[in-house]
Amino acid sequence: MRGAVIYAPGDVRVEERDDPEIIHPADAIIRLSASCVCGSDLWPYRGVEAIDGPTPMGHEYVGVVQETGREVRNIKPGDFVIGSFMASDGTCEICQAGYQSRCAHGEFVGAGGAQAEYLCVPLADGTLVATHGQPDPGLIPSLLAASDVLGTGWFGAVAADVRPGKTVAVVGDGAVGLLAILAARQLGAERIIAMSRHESRQKLALEFGATDIVTERGDAGVAQVKEMTGGYGAHSVIEAVGTQESMMQAIRSARPGGHVGYVGVAHGVRLPGDELFFAEVNLLGGPAPVRRFLPDLIHLIENRDIDPGQVFDLTLPLDQAAEGYRAMDERRAVKALLIP
Amino acid sequence: MRGAVIYAPGDVRVEERDDPEIIHPADAIIRLSASCVCGSDLWPYRGVEAIDGPTPMGHEYVGVVQETGREVRNIKPGDFVIGSFMASDGTCEICQAGYQSRCAHGEFVGAGGAQAEYLCVPLADGTLVATHGQPDPGLIPSLLAASDVLGTGWFGAVAADVRPGKTVAVVGDGAVGLLAILAARQLGAERIIAMSRHESRQKLALEFGATDIVTERGDAGVAQVKEMTGGYGAHSVIEAVGTQESMMQAIRSARPGGHVGYVGVAHGVRLPGDELFFAEVNLLGGPAPVRRFLPDLIHLIENRDIDPGQVFDLTLPLDQAAEGYRAMDERRAVKALLIP
Repeated sequence: MRGAVIYAPGDVRVEERDDPEIIHPADAIIRLSASCVCGSDLWPYRGVEAIDGPTPMGHEYVGVVQETGREVRNIKPGDFVIGSFMASDGTCEICQAGYQSRCAHGEFVGAGGAQAEYLCVPLADGTLVATHGQPDPGLIPSLLAASDVLGTGWFGAVAADVRPGKTVAVVGDGAVGLLAILAARQLGAERIIAMSRHESRQKLALEFGATDIVTERGDAGVAQVKEMTGGYGAHSVIEAVGTQESMMQAIRSARPGGHVGYVGVAHGVRLPGDELFFAEVNLLGGPAPVRRFLPDLIHLIENRDIDPGQVFDLTLPLDQAAEGYRAMDERRAVKALLIP
Repeated sequence: MRGAVIYAPGDVRVEERDDPEIIHPADAIIRLSASCVCGSDLWPYRGVEAIDGPTPMGHEYVGVVQETGREVRNIKPGDFVIGSFMASDGTCEICQAGYQSRCAHGEFVGAGGAQAEYLCVPLADGTLVATHGQPDPGLIPSLLAASDVLGTGWFGAVAADVRPGKTVAVVGDGAVGLLAILAARQLGAERIIAMSRHESRQKLALEFGATDIVTERGDAGVAQVKEMTGGYGAHSVIEAVGTQESMMQAIRSARPGGHVGYVGVAHGVRLPGDELFFAEVNLLGGPAPVRRFLPDLIHLIENRDIDPGQVFDLTLPLDQAAEGYRAMDERRAVKALLIP
């Protein structure tokens, strides 16, 4: 099969790879209908994260089940399925509590590389969710978004305790930040402040439900959010970048007793304990337990209540994956969808 | 009046000070029935926190209202009252949400020094809670504990989301840690693991409701907690020290999706963002909004359901405050009560 492999910063190649095979009886093989490039794929692409030899890339996927191991019960060949980037057994205490991304037996699905024609998904019963019949092709981008970027934005909003009537600030205007806005809107937020300085992203932010745009960053952005909230700060802040600056901007934008949900993969972040202590905000973040939200998200998409697929502003054949990375790195595209 | 003043590390003196006066019409003057030395008073006493000239000490207090400013409505001279170390108006959005320790108009009550005969309490209506009549003198230590150390332990347990049936670990066996155990018990925890290596404190921990004692610290202590919880970690961890080691021990002892409530005043703590991200624990801490809990705590004490006053294992006349600091510094006493 064909699949994307990163060799070095800036060097992504689509090449011939071995077809995946069932190794464990809980595995399933999927023929991918679509995959995409994640903001987190840019960390190694930009050389911020080390690359340990040629590495298959991609961890977002939708497709049709091709083959299942003998222990798999809940899905069958022919099903159209979506799963999270983390495989989960669905039965351990952590999964049962809704933190499937930290399943006691979890594995990174992306290890196999989802920017490819086929993917082996471990723990298929706990990981995959089937749609109600074969989806309308027009829904595939939105269903693909549910696999990570929508589920991650959604977790950011849930972790930030977004509720009806609350004021929410979103730090980061990448695909996750934009879909966190959509999630906050769905969860009933009254006011959603998008912190963004890029016109095309501001437009999508407003379309997804943002009520206000703040273009200032850092402490100037914080001051703006405070001014808009009677001096208190936002009830909920979603952090969707992962840098020291964005984390501190998020924490400082929240009111005491407020909540910060952080879903940008942390790079080089060191939180000062004394400031955190006196900020007195609730902090929750980490790899999103996308699996928790998938049934609801699939329902909302099938019902056409939400259209998260709009974050894909570039669609390419899989063979041009490298151009997808380049376009996102240069911020010419919010998110690139790849068709195998 | 007589009052304790710190001059330098290790140098606490009880000396003649001016009687406090009503300055703002929302103030009240209290004649103190008892005060005490806080674990946080040891930070400057040990030279960890800078001392900016002679500073009145003490921020825990119970006593009888002597005089009130003309705006005070809810309490009157003669009332026996308890308040938090932070004054709060009770009306701003932060107070209304239950975070009175970060009131938009909050002031540190301890600025006036509660290790003294009299204390001026700002924002008396929002800050003070009166008991039902004059309390039995035997209840005074417990009511005094509610002013900070019990309220802080309680907040630690609430911030750590302690609930019926859950497993709780408590890092720190000072008075706050011990009373966090009492709080966890009251909140219905099934299993309470006290991390303590001091025999006399272990005894009090068991009396307050601990079911298990772990004497190991750091990663060895974490491994022990994991082993006791099926490899998962505790649902709730209360941190009651404030150092880098204790914070990391607390975070690592919690399971993914679990909660860490941290109430030890952070000193020199830097939380690594990447570890925090993948730990995926809920974090909440800071100066305890004691005022939120006071009505319930007073009720439990008046009802003799709880006896938090047991943390005072040394009672001294105010004039011997210096000995109270010494005894706590040398860990000869858990907590020293001072009688003016």
